[in-house]
Amino acid sequence: MLKAKVHVTLKNGVLDPQGKAIGNALSALGFNGVDNVRQGKFIELDLDETDPAAAEARVKDMCEKLLANTVIENYRIDIAG
Amino acid sequence: MLKAKVHVTLKNGVLDPQGKAIGNALSALGFNGVDNVRQGKFIELDLDETDPAAAEARVKDMCEKLLANTVIENYRIDIAG
Repeated sequence: MLKAKVHVTLKNGVLDPQGKAIGNALSALGFNGVDNVRQGKFIELDLDETDPAAAEARVKDMCEKLLANTVIENYRIDIAG
Repeated sequence: MLKAKVHVTLKNGVLDPQGKAIGNALSALGFNGVDNVRQGKFIELDLDETDPAAAEARVKDMCEKLLANTVIENYRIDIAG
């Protein structure tokens, strides 16, 4: 069994209102000097697969089909034992 | 300037309906053998700080006060140059 970790982040240039809201809330709380807050998703899953390359290919397929909106989002896959 | 990356994940044992929904959607799409899907948040921000230890302490404070609900969520901080 392998574990996959997927980061889905908005592409540069895509507006991130959620990140903006976090940035505003941080400065309202008195945290200054914080900039460029971006929020993404982090998805962990277990795969019944033993070959890391095959696992990565499957997760890539999942990202393209479901996990990420590739028009506006990038994804990064890490496979761990 | 330092970059901080924060992972906020649900603690083990806390129900994750969003992860469950992703798991169901994956199996509806024909991806079998996927288990234990958990979704968390991934937050990136820039800090006007040069000392990594001070930056980490500040981000820890942000996590405790805003970014994570420490009753049900864990957080992990990575500071990069």
